[in-house]
Amino acid sequence: MTQLEYAKQGISSSAIKRVARLEDSNTQTILSRIREGRIVIPLNKNHSIKKVCGIGYGLRTKVNANIGTSTDKAGILQELKKLRIAVDSGADTIMDLSIGGRISLLRKEILRHSPVPVGTVPIYEVVVNAHKKRRDFLKFDIGEILETLQAQAEDGVDFFTIHAGVTQSSLSVLKRNKRLLGIVSRGGAILARWIAEHRKENPFFQHFDKILDLAYDYDVTLSLGDGLRPGSIWDATDPAQIAELKILGGLALRARKRCVQVMIEGPGHVPLDEIKKNIDLQKKICRQAPFYVLGPLVTDVASGHDHIAASIGAALAGSFGADFLCYVTASEHLRHPSIEDVREGVIASKIAAHAADLAKGIKSARQWDRQISEARKKRDWKRQIALSIDPVKAAQYRLSSRPQLQDVCTMCGRYCSIKLMQECVD
Amino acid sequence: MTQLEYAKQGISSSAIKRVARLEDSNTQTILSRIREGRIVIPLNKNHSIKKVCGIGYGLRTKVNANIGTSTDKAGILQELKKLRIAVDSGADTIMDLSIGGRISLLRKEILRHSPVPVGTVPIYEVVVNAHKKRRDFLKFDIGEILETLQAQAEDGVDFFTIHAGVTQSSLSVLKRNKRLLGIVSRGGAILARWIAEHRKENPFFQHFDKILDLAYDYDVTLSLGDGLRPGSIWDATDPAQIAELKILGGLALRARKRCVQVMIEGPGHVPLDEIKKNIDLQKKICRQAPFYVLGPLVTDVASGHDHIAASIGAALAGSFGADFLCYVTASEHLRHPSIEDVREGVIASKIAAHAADLAKGIKSARQWDRQISEARKKRDWKRQIALSIDPVKAAQYRLSSRPQLQDVCTMCGRYCSIKLMQECVD
Repeated sequence: MTQLEYAKQGISSSAIKRVARLEDSNTQTILSRIREGRIVIPLNKNHSIKKVCGIGYGLRTKVNANIGTSTDKAGILQELKKLRIAVDSGADTIMDLSIGGRISLLRKEILRHSPVPVGTVPIYEVVVNAHKKRRDFLKFDIGEILETLQAQAEDGVDFFTIHAGVTQSSLSVLKRNKRLLGIVSRGGAILARWIAEHRKENPFFQHFDKILDLAYDYDVTLSLGDGLRPGSIWDATDPAQIAELKILGGLALRARKRCVQVMIEGPGHVPLDEIKKNIDLQKKICRQAPFYVLGPLVTDVASGHDHIAASIGAALAGSFGADFLCYVTASEHLRHPSIEDVREGVIASKIAAHAADLAKGIKSARQWDRQISEARKKRDWKRQIALSIDPVKAAQYRLSSRPQLQDVCTMCGRYCSIKLMQECVD
Repeated sequence: MTQLEYAKQGISSSAIKRVARLEDSNTQTILSRIREGRIVIPLNKNHSIKKVCGIGYGLRTKVNANIGTSTDKAGILQELKKLRIAVDSGADTIMDLSIGGRISLLRKEILRHSPVPVGTVPIYEVVVNAHKKRRDFLKFDIGEILETLQAQAEDGVDFFTIHAGVTQSSLSVLKRNKRLLGIVSRGGAILARWIAEHRKENPFFQHFDKILDLAYDYDVTLSLGDGLRPGSIWDATDPAQIAELKILGGLALRARKRCVQVMIEGPGHVPLDEIKKNIDLQKKICRQAPFYVLGPLVTDVASGHDHIAASIGAALAGSFGADFLCYVTASEHLRHPSIEDVREGVIASKIAAHAADLAKGIKSARQWDRQISEARKKRDWKRQIALSIDPVKAAQYRLSSRPQLQDVCTMCGRYCSIKLMQECVD
């Protein structure tokens, strides 16, 4: 049975119980929200992980870190190091987006080592294999797609991104409503090319029921990808994006009926003042399905610092109800990320998630801020650093600049306001 | 005459004309907004600068970078390097917050080298001198305050932060409404201590008319400091903060009557969902005076990455109407900032300001995003990098990771979505 099936039958699976405990909630609440499709627990029946992860309404906002090889950078050890540092920095899930080198081997290694749920974008393996076998990455059919999905599900992948909303109809909307940047999703572009070349419907859309059967068998959560997400703030919330979102809404309902857990992916590049509208639209059109946002980046110009542009958008999206934030690294738009980029990207996204949780009224989030501020008041540096979102960097900073007076820092020295007030006979 | 006096008389000063040009506006609009107190142009009569800076309604959101020595780190050359890097990274103004070493000499050097307006917090020099002369930093009176203000105005300081709202009445509100972290403003804590020790009213408040006379003589813009700003999200928007804000509102009106330009400083630490309320309150209570926010930090736990927590809050504050963002560096709460901290802090804040400008509908901001996205579409890497908010870092990233195919990057390689779509016969 899938977690959704358990919930529909009112049965508390061990995963459901664990999520309830982790989130200071209770099993009945979690059960009913899974039943309503507002919470998912990505957990393949073949995968055992240390940290079960619930995603959705009322839960802490979660953070995903993308890792994986590219055609230029295909080292497996490097990606496994990224896995470790991403998890150590607080990533709640990992996606393996490999498109280079020994994809299948790396996936198995990631699944074996990851303490958190692992997602993939199976179309990548499909096209890489097509390119290897036939020197044409577009020479594949539904048979090969299903084989790949089957193999990845068997390996234990917990969630799949599938771009089933890039269809002949949504592409025709895109054609009628020109964009500045067109399609910027790798999966979306591949499927748009496939549809154009084969003059057939998107196989993920066409054969969605078969995909549901397979997802059901392993309880793979489907993450309905936004292949037509805007890649520039000039393209934000445009007709093509909305046309795709409506298709995803319909597919989400079909998934729920089949007892397959489902979430929806979202933009992308969105100016600050359009973020609320995007969340509201998704929640309405997709009947409250968990919303997984990529960023959103609030500007196109932040190359080299896109983790910051993304954390601004993500914090806001989270505060309005996005449930799951895909990190963006500083290397976005420029290069394959380094290990340090991964670390900084996860931390930036965790700050956004936590800021959103404070706004959402998550109690444990508020307690964390109380504790660090109490330590700050006492000038208890050890505890302040331990409670920081990144104790490693906080400790480095503290150690790099020692004050003459041990109980303050080198910013204010003897004029530390907190110390001044404490010395005040009040 | 001050810029406000020019505006009241309908005279377009050269500074007013320059601001109109820089902001794609017209002198009549700028004139009327200065007259209404919604725009200020900090520019001391004794200071000549290359880049005049208008701050307020309808203008691009501006960014300030704090530099200056501390009691532990008093090197002058280091601070002059920070000045250069802050300006090169896009800071619109500089504040010299020195509290250590040769304060007066450093200020003169900063004023001499800065191409942008320079602000100070004169109380710092007052207490440092009191400490030097009498080994008691609280042994000063209004005479010494006015002497210091006079000397700094004569040097050419363009704006003063004065904490005139930390009064016996606002402190009694603080006493009745306990906080987690009390007073976290250096200037605020000094004045609270002075008031407690001398059992007298805040001299900046008591002798505000004298300060106005002096500010008028040199056209120093007053930035009314928020000495009672919250230092924890638990203290946000509390009675003491609001009590001080109301006092600042009254003082702002008095300044305007005396033809002294004035802006208001704001928090601090504020959870995401309270930021709009903070901006709305300030704009209402202070009759639309330009709002200068320090952050706000949207969480207390981001030590080591507070530039990110601040840029989230600042972007949101800007989008709701804050006019002027004080940067926060990654070293906040931990140490005196390094040169690299200054650089990263300015960039993070510039991203926030630009994101706010997109939301505010500033036309030039939207054009910038269009241009970089057009370059991205063409895979014109040179232009993309030149148009990035930080061309130096963007270029480093690009050079550090060269792709086999020169027209893409190492993230997607041959599966670059933009290239895939361009190759598509559409």
